[in-house]
Amino acid sequence: MAIPDVAGLEDFLFREVPALRGDYRVEAAGPGWATLRLTVGPQHLRPGPTVAGPHVFALADFAAWLAVQTLAGPLPMAVTVNASIDYLRMPGPAALLARAEVLKLGRSLAVIDIRISRVDTGDLVARSSMTYAMPRKPSG
Amino acid sequence: MAIPDVAGLEDFLFREVPALRGDYRVEAAGPGWATLRLTVGPQHLRPGPTVAGPHVFALADFAAWLAVQTLAGPLPMAVTVNASIDYLRMPGPAALLARAEVLKLGRSLAVIDIRISRVDTGDLVARSSMTYAMPRKPSG
Amino acid sequence: MAIPDVAGLEDFLFREVPALRGDYRVEAAGPGWATLRLTVGPQHLRPGPTVAGPHVFALADFAAWLAVQTLAGPLPMAVTVNASIDYLRMPGPAALLARAEVLKLGRSLAVIDIRISRVDTGDLVARSSMTYAMPRKPSG
Amino acid sequence: MAIPDVAGLEDFLFREVPALRGDYRVEAAGPGWATLRLTVGPQHLRPGPTVAGPHVFALADFAAWLAVQTLAGPLPMAVTVNASIDYLRMPGPAALLARAEVLKLGRSLAVIDIRISRVDTGDLVARSSMTYAMPRKPSG
Repeated sequence: MAIPDVAGLEDFLFREVPALRGDYRVEAAGPGWATLRLTVGPQHLRPGPTVAGPHVFALADFAAWLAVQTLAGPLPMAVTVNASIDYLRMPGPAALLARAEVLKLGRSLAVIDIRISRVDTGDLVARSSMTYAMPRKPSG
Repeated sequence: MAIPDVAGLEDFLFREVPALRGDYRVEAAGPGWATLRLTVGPQHLRPGPTVAGPHVFALADFAAWLAVQTLAGPLPMAVTVNASIDYLRMPGPAALLARAEVLKLGRSLAVIDIRISRVDTGDLVARSSMTYAMPRKPSG
Repeated sequence: MAIPDVAGLEDFLFREVPALRGDYRVEAAGPGWATLRLTVGPQHLRPGPTVAGPHVFALADFAAWLAVQTLAGPLPMAVTVNASIDYLRMPGPAALLARAEVLKLGRSLAVIDIRISRVDTGDLVARSSMTYAMPRKPSG
Repeated sequence: MAIPDVAGLEDFLFREVPALRGDYRVEAAGPGWATLRLTVGPQHLRPGPTVAGPHVFALADFAAWLAVQTLAGPLPMAVTVNASIDYLRMPGPAALLARAEVLKLGRSLAVIDIRISRVDTGDLVARSSMTYAMPRKPSG
């Protein structure tokens, strides 16, 4: 995969996780980072209305996964072994943007920092870090 | 709400988050704890096949939310402020059971420990802790 | 090392981290778990008085490290790659007991759950999880 | 307290936690952030030699505490309720610098992001986030 390449990352994302097509869009990417946008629909909301926490988490996780791909991809079997997330503000029903940055890429582990903001105001709504286990052999 | 009561918790869950109906089921509950089951379908899977991480996280989050309700409910606006999760083993495509236990219920914060296992083998697949902010005034 | 063996674990602990001698004591251990006690002195306290958070964290970390040794030791170079801790209650100036349990021991990672209680009342004061990277080759 | 003021923060730190005098130094501060330096001595090291994980954690915690003081201090009784840390690289026996930044300051909670680097090379060695509970009434 020619990386970092927005179209290539998006193809990878939708091929591996077809259910994301329509809601997710790769906005930008470079070596070690990617930004992923979630267009919010009724299925993402909880009373408030606001995007439900698990959907914010999912956005962070997919953005982290793509950031790993920009350095080591394509590695669809890189899997999350640990995640933490701080929800800072209720996002409301707004579109969200996650920016994921690889802090460490080791032989067996990658650590990624993710910040999630509202697209309209730029307000930071959550911060997360994820640790991925790298598969022993690249799958492609 | 007469709590702990499995039917009451399930009514609460599906009224607040209608999209969960069909996949989720409250299995058991008592003061300070609840178990929630996820029946897995194609929409929850990633290549492996295995339940995708964000769906494991969502199950943990909803189970934690219900455990809080058993002590302080109904408080639909109790919101997650922090979460961490360790993925221990790939769950495969199996139905999952989350057991959430309230470790602390304070005036402003609740801390919940959650363990997620496969229903068929009982293997522990993930462990999580969640911190919830308690709303200032009960909503019901 | 004949493990699980309380005296053997304590020898290991004090040989690797001599500064702990005097304050720490291994209380019990078995395959996959260990309990470690901290006798609290003025150097551990912050205004309250209560045991300062970093000392609670250190107790959790050393207990986790010992629990790993019961299954895979002696591996002094097993290192923490990720940790999370929830402080549930101020411990006050009381002696503390950490019980660490290995939830997963893989080829490259171990995940340990730790619960920290007051020795006198048994009250749970903190919960933590730690991920350790296992060295490629045992050192002993 | 005239804040942000490096000397004022350092006085606050050493008055509240006298044991830190000698090893710690406030390097810089501004509204919502502070940098704190740890001069490493034999008491901080583990075999490697490298700064032991709990000392890296303590540095992060104190830096976060100071960052909160720059916005809301003096509040010595602001206490950590949750912390997570990713250890990215062994720091070796080098002096460390923690930069703490307040991501959210609410009525009851503050969330702080902390990055810890080697002073000599600037290499990032750990990333942490901490949640502090704010006391109901300022103490000063």
